[in-house]
Amino acid sequence: MNQRLQKLQAWMKENGIEVSFITSSENVFYLSGFFSNPHERLLALALFQEDEPFLVCPGMEVHDVRNSGWNQEIIGYSDIDNPWELVHTSINKRISTVRNVAIEKEHLNVERYEQLSALFPSAAFVSAEEKLRKLRMIKDAKELKIIEEACALADYAIEVGCSEIKEGRTELEVLNAVEYALKQKGVTEMSFSTMVLTGANAASPHGNPGSTKIKKGDLVLFDLGVVVDRYCSDITRTVAYGDINEKQKEIYDTVLKAQLASVEASRPGVTAAKVDLTARKIISDAGYGEYFPHRLGHGLGISVHEYPSMTETNHLVIEEGMVYTIEPGIYVPGIAGVRIEDDIYITADGAKILTKFPKELQIIR
Amino acid sequence: MNQRLQKLQAWMKENGIEVSFITSSENVFYLSGFFSNPHERLLALALFQEDEPFLVCPGMEVHDVRNSGWNQEIIGYSDIDNPWELVHTSINKRISTVRNVAIEKEHLNVERYEQLSALFPSAAFVSAEEKLRKLRMIKDAKELKIIEEACALADYAIEVGCSEIKEGRTELEVLNAVEYALKQKGVTEMSFSTMVLTGANAASPHGNPGSTKIKKGDLVLFDLGVVVDRYCSDITRTVAYGDINEKQKEIYDTVLKAQLASVEASRPGVTAAKVDLTARKIISDAGYGEYFPHRLGHGLGISVHEYPSMTETNHLVIEEGMVYTIEPGIYVPGIAGVRIEDDIYITADGAKILTKFPKELQIIR
Repeated sequence: MNQRLQKLQAWMKENGIEVSFITSSENVFYLSGFFSNPHERLLALALFQEDEPFLVCPGMEVHDVRNSGWNQEIIGYSDIDNPWELVHTSINKRISTVRNVAIEKEHLNVERYEQLSALFPSAAFVSAEEKLRKLRMIKDAKELKIIEEACALADYAIEVGCSEIKEGRTELEVLNAVEYALKQKGVTEMSFSTMVLTGANAASPHGNPGSTKIKKGDLVLFDLGVVVDRYCSDITRTVAYGDINEKQKEIYDTVLKAQLASVEASRPGVTAAKVDLTARKIISDAGYGEYFPHRLGHGLGISVHEYPSMTETNHLVIEEGMVYTIEPGIYVPGIAGVRIEDDIYITADGAKILTKFPKELQIIR
Repeated sequence: MNQRLQKLQAWMKENGIEVSFITSSENVFYLSGFFSNPHERLLALALFQEDEPFLVCPGMEVHDVRNSGWNQEIIGYSDIDNPWELVHTSINKRISTVRNVAIEKEHLNVERYEQLSALFPSAAFVSAEEKLRKLRMIKDAKELKIIEEACALADYAIEVGCSEIKEGRTELEVLNAVEYALKQKGVTEMSFSTMVLTGANAASPHGNPGSTKIKKGDLVLFDLGVVVDRYCSDITRTVAYGDINEKQKEIYDTVLKAQLASVEASRPGVTAAKVDLTARKIISDAGYGEYFPHRLGHGLGISVHEYPSMTETNHLVIEEGMVYTIEPGIYVPGIAGVRIEDDIYITADGAKILTKFPKELQIIR
């Protein structure tokens, strides 16, 4: 049994939970190594304190589960089986008294909850999500390596984006060229909808890439991420097309100073709040406090947004093995929008920066 | 109040449901005209038998809701508000006795269900999904027009795909060229992951586009769809690269014959089962029954898979206004995979075919 399952079992024992019934594709993948998006069909991992876990999936995926390295029981069902009956039988083979069942309350839908409730009419249902978020927060060496690959492709995307900036090109044309180049490298999925925003658009919280043309004197903001082996990267760079004015420069320099300071502040033992406030104070002191309306960053991994949440009120202590973004921004309507974002990994000595595209202002000629 | 809301209200009255609390982006859009993906934040439409409905959304989206044409109450909440308290207050202003609440049981998660249950501790929760699926099944003139646009772009995509087939090109290269061309036309979203499969890959139910090169004598299968104004199209064409053998031709001709017959059979008054069985019989009679392992088709609209489900056991009666796919296929492992798919609209006189790319075997030289 892998370490992740063992950690969840230890938590179950501490909390008197006899069954964990995990159904989100991401957590099933994290715990079992098998990924699938079964759409409306049931995919679930059932875990017990002592007994062998099992994975339930559509029959046609059994072979894929085995190939993924899962060497515990697999229960495949056909379209005419009732998977809940199979689940019931398999659980009853293992245990008889179920007082507490852990589920993902933010993921499981009511229909399935009613099915589970009928199987365990006297059980209480508790949430496994907080625990799973905490487990996923600390990355192992294998996860780090994959995220580094995803970050290298994100760097490449920014490089392509910069080379595609030309007078009169639209945001969508540049975006399209970036994604085309990534696909040629074998990328099949982005972490989220790629953003290319120019001039005033970059300063709008509702900005979406469109037919606005890039013109000299614009700051162009790229925000994108690449998925590699189910793990996400996330990078933002803001570059200048031709000469920009003093105000734009001041904003850029302020964001950069804040970003560098928060990277520097990131090390085991400080709180997320402290890291956020490091950037926030620099931006506020420069008079732009009201124009930095979002948190400093977020953890990333299998999800593009996961723990830790880098907010000014989160007193979670930063630990070795965490991966999170540092992405301060200043958005002055009508003037400029600048954000600079790195993905970092926390080592015993401090932050290792995973995204490597230069942060000094790049001026595209 | 729009007709869709009125129809849902009529259903609520018939079934003694005092509140419908709709939370999926798709159904909120269908009922209100406002689309948003609020991620972890709450978006909901509350509907009553007589009182004014209201829409709950993050505060920063209130303006967008108003712009979308929603002229009933909007409740915006900030990140420090508890939206459930606002919901409670707004519902209490309208009604006091709530015996039945309709929700989307396949969409609402357990966490939100617990919030709602706490607001209405003595209410029963029933599902609104079946009713909403039936409402969405019949398209109005405006919806048809949008789907027609989405189908025209799907036709264009197939045209591009055919022009990109060359000796040695990989599936992914052709796919990438197709999506690039669509983006240049302003397309920002596909209905699902585009499929380009060549030769034996097209015959595998697990086929995914990859680095397989197209070679002379291959059948190349395209399956793709384009989203326009939130509505999906879905087309499949299988074309020959150079000369194909007699077996491949026989399979193609059988699929085409089955496809044409099911289109012809589609008219108000027949059952979905009858339409499915029309194609299935032709394929079985030709000896390929076991190689047609899926349903004939599915409804499409805001979702790429919606009602009606075109299966051999669905006795639902086809009505004017339905839009669905007809997509028989034969997949003989190692030999050939052929599928031909149209989107059709049901008129009083029969099927109107919305996807217009030719279905006679296209041979690319």
